[in-house]
Amino acid sequence: MSLENNNKDLTLDPENWDQMRELGHRMIDDLFEYWKGIREEKIWKPIPAEVKDFLDQPIPEKGQDPEEVYQEFKQFIFPYNKGNVHPRFFAWIQGTGTPLGVLADLLASGMNPNAAIGEHSAMYVDRQVVNWCKELMNFPKEASGILVSGGSMANITALTVARNSFRDEKIRSKGLKAASAQLVLYCSVETHSCIQKAAEIIGLGTDAVRKIGVNERFEMRTNELEAQIQADLQAGLLPFCIVGTSGTVNTGAIDPMEELLEISRKYGMWFHVDGAYGALAKLDSKYSGRLKAIEEADSLAFDLHKWLYVPYEVGCTLIRDAKKHRESFAVTPNYLLQESRGLAGGLDSVNNYGFELSRGFKALKIWMSLKEHGREKYAQMIAQNNRQAEYLAHLVNQHPELELTAPVSMSITCFRMIHPDFSESQLRELNREILLRLQEEGIASPSSTILNGKFTLRVANVNQRTRMEDMDLLVREVLRIGGEIQNSGT
Amino acid sequence: MSLENNNKDLTLDPENWDQMRELGHRMIDDLFEYWKGIREEKIWKPIPAEVKDFLDQPIPEKGQDPEEVYQEFKQFIFPYNKGNVHPRFFAWIQGTGTPLGVLADLLASGMNPNAAIGEHSAMYVDRQVVNWCKELMNFPKEASGILVSGGSMANITALTVARNSFRDEKIRSKGLKAASAQLVLYCSVETHSCIQKAAEIIGLGTDAVRKIGVNERFEMRTNELEAQIQADLQAGLLPFCIVGTSGTVNTGAIDPMEELLEISRKYGMWFHVDGAYGALAKLDSKYSGRLKAIEEADSLAFDLHKWLYVPYEVGCTLIRDAKKHRESFAVTPNYLLQESRGLAGGLDSVNNYGFELSRGFKALKIWMSLKEHGREKYAQMIAQNNRQAEYLAHLVNQHPELELTAPVSMSITCFRMIHPDFSESQLRELNREILLRLQEEGIASPSSTILNGKFTLRVANVNQRTRMEDMDLLVREVLRIGGEIQNSGT
Ligand SMILES: Cc1ncc(COP(=O)(O)O)c(C=O)c1O
Ligand SMILES: Cc1ncc(COP(=O)(O)O)c(C=O)c1O
Repeated sequence: MSLENNNKDLTLDPENWDQMRELGHRMIDDLFEYWKGIREEKIWKPIPAEVKDFLDQPIPEKGQDPEEVYQEFKQFIFPYNKGNVHPRFFAWIQGTGTPLGVLADLLASGMNPNAAIGEHSAMYVDRQVVNWCKELMNFPKEASGILVSGGSMANITALTVARNSFRDEKIRSKGLKAASAQLVLYCSVETHSCIQKAAEIIGLGTDAVRKIGVNERFEMRTNELEAQIQADLQAGLLPFCIVGTSGTVNTGAIDPMEELLEISRKYGMWFHVDGAYGALAKLDSKYSGRLKAIEEADSLAFDLHKWLYVPYEVGCTLIRDAKKHRESFAVTPNYLLQESRGLAGGLDSVNNYGFELSRGFKALKIWMSLKEHGREKYAQMIAQNNRQAEYLAHLVNQHPELELTAPVSMSITCFRMIHPDFSESQLRELNREILLRLQEEGIASPSSTILNGKFTLRVANVNQRTRMEDMDLLVREVLRIGGEIQNSGT
Repeated sequence: MSLENNNKDLTLDPENWDQMRELGHRMIDDLFEYWKGIREEKIWKPIPAEVKDFLDQPIPEKGQDPEEVYQEFKQFIFPYNKGNVHPRFFAWIQGTGTPLGVLADLLASGMNPNAAIGEHSAMYVDRQVVNWCKELMNFPKEASGILVSGGSMANITALTVARNSFRDEKIRSKGLKAASAQLVLYCSVETHSCIQKAAEIIGLGTDAVRKIGVNERFEMRTNELEAQIQADLQAGLLPFCIVGTSGTVNTGAIDPMEELLEISRKYGMWFHVDGAYGALAKLDSKYSGRLKAIEEADSLAFDLHKWLYVPYEVGCTLIRDAKKHRESFAVTPNYLLQESRGLAGGLDSVNNYGFELSRGFKALKIWMSLKEHGREKYAQMIAQNNRQAEYLAHLVNQHPELELTAPVSMSITCFRMIHPDFSESQLRELNREILLRLQEEGIASPSSTILNGKFTLRVANVNQRTRMEDMDLLVREVLRIGGEIQNSGT
């Protein structure tokens, strides 16, 4: 090792800037081609074995021309995309993204700020976007919030605050072992699995999650809820939190928010709303009334990469009581001292409000998207998805070979093909095969679920590219494929 | 509401595709201009009040031309960047990013897959990159791993597995309240705050974190560690995990890995390594020996957005025992049923290994970057940062007005200006003012910390743009500014 400045400095910057810039232009062009023509493309393609082989090689020792790397991307990765950018992607609950949202990600990555601490523009954009999120949800300005990677993180962040804020148990410092009794959390059987996962991670344990039954519309039964709370109190346990879901992942069901709020108040419990999917349905006047009470929740989790159609990843947690929020997470070690001037000045550090220290500039895509379209357009888009789901249900109802397997709520339609002579397990096989062929033929991607024991097709629509005609096409193809399977005697 | 297909479908896609594409080209051009010329730019600028005002307006109701949105970005956001893309950014531990890394983020966002579940290329790229991470760290192929948002999440993910795997306490299902006693975790006083935060979040509580003292090189004292473990055992507590740090955030110190491993084995404890910053120093032959034992750790957390220089966000957790990893997180609700064919087929879902369900395509930037440069180049870059830190220390030692405040370890150099007549508090003010003026004049961005009560400048270098000459410049400017402050009698 020489301690002299020998001037042979290495860098990872391109040797040829212009060539790399030109490559960037071509990537832009290829993406635009892709998006523009996506409607005519197959939604999904099986991945050939040689592609899987190629993606199973050891780490490269030597470098390769960026141009070549991009060619490999185009050959092995790009063609086998998941498909949630496609107008007929309806699986799980996955947003489409938008071109300007993607370009915002480019800019965010290009600036590459760590948006957790310091005095720089990303911190102000982040704060503004969190304030816009409060406006979207009609949360008070004094509430606090944080952008996180998605609904799972938004829920676990909120539940950590709920746990730490429970009475004077001092759980943050003393831990759960020292709590005066076992804390118990309430949700419904239809609640998203991330709530159970959160309870497990934050140390409550699976057994501390009470999954309350639902009515025929898949909404939590509040009489059962209250009975369970009382039983747990009797048993000396500590009911501390009710989780209501605004738009369940299975069927879009909405738990009775008003009543959950009341019960939580009656028993001195935290009221959390998982609106990862459906909190934004507030923007559709058909749902705003039923979702009014979420404005009173102690905390609310919702995703922007679902129904705000921005690219992955971003979700948001709002916490009514900013002080409780900060008290759950703030730490200031010596290397993060805040200053009144310079780079280390500025707004309160974001890491005082969540799990992460380093954070990318997720806020920018939301900022640019809301600027581009405005709140009104988003309200229309969300309403459109809801109307599309209703239209699909209407088509299903017109066909005796099809049946709805759940009432339509928000933008989810669950249905299946039926046949008078088929057993439940034959129906399962039939619909499973319809689903697989829809995907394999590249037509559309619903997903599946099981409702009251019935295997069912599930069309969840947070897609900004879907048209009404796609619902016609979907039904037509389900009937065609179902007919073919029945004819071939499968 | 009409249930007919009325064909007036809305979309968030551009009205004019070509205009939007052309905007994308200009963004690329602007970013390349920025990166190419960054060395000549000021590293940091204060944010004017009118910019802060602009970034504090309510949510837009109506949309705006994308071109205009971009102009606002260029006027209000772009100029006030944090600066970690700049060759003289040395604050906290924040990577630089690379042009191809950024373009990879563009492609990832453009494809927009949810890389958690399903049969599509991102899943295979993700798996390959996790395997490459194992190769980088010399972890066995059978180990498991997951890409997460950064070091904080990587650590908390690992510690959750450590907690859940502790003996037959069944903490995942029963929770911590039911554990046979309080679990205790050991780290040093120099350990990153995210470890304490993780312990708080997963329900152990602050009080369950034992911060062991360090020697004069800021490395954990293993005799104190063992004494504390024995005292805790005596007190009926459950020592379950030792966290060793490979590269502390303050000074780059390395805990004695070999000994920590031994002690953990002796007491049947989990050995976790926080290598968020410095695990990758393994690639520098100067450090590979001392870091050998991390290959034996039960779990290892490290960041790719730090010393692999990829843009935010991405970190990695490796877990030696894949089964324990999966058992901590796997859940399969009805709406996520895996199939043998079609979109819902493929690899084991990534959400079985971590907190998140929705996940972006973070793996692509690592994939493209490692392809572009190869492992060897990264090894050289990391070594170069270490040599730059040593060179800076060498310069500091040449100047009697400067002193090192910690031994140089890895790529962190801590030093300050001194003066024989100054009290400790005057030295603090002097160095604080030097730091602020370095930033405010746009020259360089070190950060600060306090070591043994001494306020100190801290140069942490995971910067792929830094040259040896930047160290000369830094020292020259520190001396100049320090002299000016002293002359002006501040
Ligand atoms: C109701 C509900 N909650 C939580 C989640 C998890 O959100 P994410 O996938 O963003 O982590 C989902 C995802 O579909 C959801 O629908
Ligand atoms: C030693 C150490 N651990 C953990 C972290 C946290 O990592 P991240 O900022 O990626 O969350 C850091 C960040 O600097 C670190 O230096």
